[in-house]
Amino acid sequence: MCQLLGMNCNVPTDICFSFEGFSVRGGKTDDHRDGWGIAFFEGRGCRIFIDEKPSVTSPIAELVRRYPIHSTHVIAHIRKATQGKIALENCHPFRRELWGRYWVFAHNGDLQDFDYQSTGVYRPVGKTDSERAFCLILETLQQKFPDGKPPLDQIYPVLKEIADTLSSKGIFNFLLSDGENFFAHCSTKLCYIVRQAPFAAAHLIDQDLTVDFRELTTPSDRVAVIATTPLTDNEVWTPIQPSELLVFQDGLPLKFD
Amino acid sequence: MCQLLGMNCNVPTDICFSFEGFSVRGGKTDDHRDGWGIAFFEGRGCRIFIDEKPSVTSPIAELVRRYPIHSTHVIAHIRKATQGKIALENCHPFRRELWGRYWVFAHNGDLQDFDYQSTGVYRPVGKTDSERAFCLILETLQQKFPDGKPPLDQIYPVLKEIADTLSSKGIFNFLLSDGENFFAHCSTKLCYIVRQAPFAAAHLIDQDLTVDFRELTTPSDRVAVIATTPLTDNEVWTPIQPSELLVFQDGLPLKFD
Repeated sequence: MCQLLGMNCNVPTDICFSFEGFSVRGGKTDDHRDGWGIAFFEGRGCRIFIDEKPSVTSPIAELVRRYPIHSTHVIAHIRKATQGKIALENCHPFRRELWGRYWVFAHNGDLQDFDYQSTGVYRPVGKTDSERAFCLILETLQQKFPDGKPPLDQIYPVLKEIADTLSSKGIFNFLLSDGENFFAHCSTKLCYIVRQAPFAAAHLIDQDLTVDFRELTTPSDRVAVIATTPLTDNEVWTPIQPSELLVFQDGLPLKFD
Repeated sequence: MCQLLGMNCNVPTDICFSFEGFSVRGGKTDDHRDGWGIAFFEGRGCRIFIDEKPSVTSPIAELVRRYPIHSTHVIAHIRKATQGKIALENCHPFRRELWGRYWVFAHNGDLQDFDYQSTGVYRPVGKTDSERAFCLILETLQQKFPDGKPPLDQIYPVLKEIADTLSSKGIFNFLLSDGENFFAHCSTKLCYIVRQAPFAAAHLIDQDLTVDFRELTTPSDRVAVIATTPLTDNEVWTPIQPSELLVFQDGLPLKFD
């Protein structure tokens, strides 16, 4: 299994503090050492850093911890391999283009009875159940809305149906974004926190590190951080309920159910 | 306009030496300072580093210069913007998936009379003529061979025809690879060198740096480096002829014409 980290904000923000705590779970405070990855949306652009090395020792992870990249939509993943060997092509997040936008996907879980063989235009490159699920999601959306991106209220029920179907085949916690919408689906375990004024200090669980957000923010900033398990020990994280699909917008969760 | 750098080898090799010389053209020895990028294939996996900052000052380019990533198929690009603003989504190389493999593309040139509007499954995210050309290439290949990747001798004439057509609309030097085949098309300016035993020392044009490949290679190693203009001043680079489309395999150019 794996762990997920996501961030959605109303202004571009760096994820260095959260990634600092998250990435040590990739081989130090936890055993998710079979690769890692992180995707940053910057406007329509998107860059992904991936490595099959553990995130605690990867020189690329070290760069991500030290070099602040400001983004409104971030998805990160540390891997503990279930399906698919330790290899670059099996590292999350995965990225494809749909409707002239990049879509990024990372999965925590294991889909045991899922032997989807794509014959469409989205085909997996690696051998994970996760990438197969991502291809199915995009293939379904593309076939349902071939002309272009529809409004969110039309995408949501299609995505919810796929999420429900795949959750019946195993564990299917995922983060999905196109840099405009940010989806977080809980099948078993996922939680979030919204940081906004009045800001306070936060202390990591996995490292003895404290950041005082009062020194780094303006009163109108709002940041949602989504993670498999809480990253800080002095803040209240909200569990997402099993089978819940949240959409984050400007750092706040919206509910469509 | 821009500059291209490619590498194709028979064993995974790092590109640190060539990238050292190439990347200083992104703002120091030349003025290609509007972003840069590099793609490494590792088996079926592929990772891309891109940045809209000049390659001479980008912290990510610094990582690529210092951290040896071993790959058999590498495509790099430094940008001087013609079409499309300076932004992450307009940085080369671009990547899409076709037939269950990643395809990577970088372009040097300017297609003036090219207003292709994709209505298919490959749509540009950014605003460059280059990404539009890449989408046209993949859309054409996908429609021609919808079931899966055909042999190289079937792909080649289709690609050659697109390259010829687009070259009539402006300058269209490009590098294209799926990690298995490596295509290099010259419309106006592109050259290459094949390094193999007996190896010698090479000295960069853009930096006073010499590497003695005798110390770093085994007798069976073979590496082709492809670039817009030669990177070294003590080796003989072979110009690719205008309208020539070469396929590199295990560090050697094949000709299909």
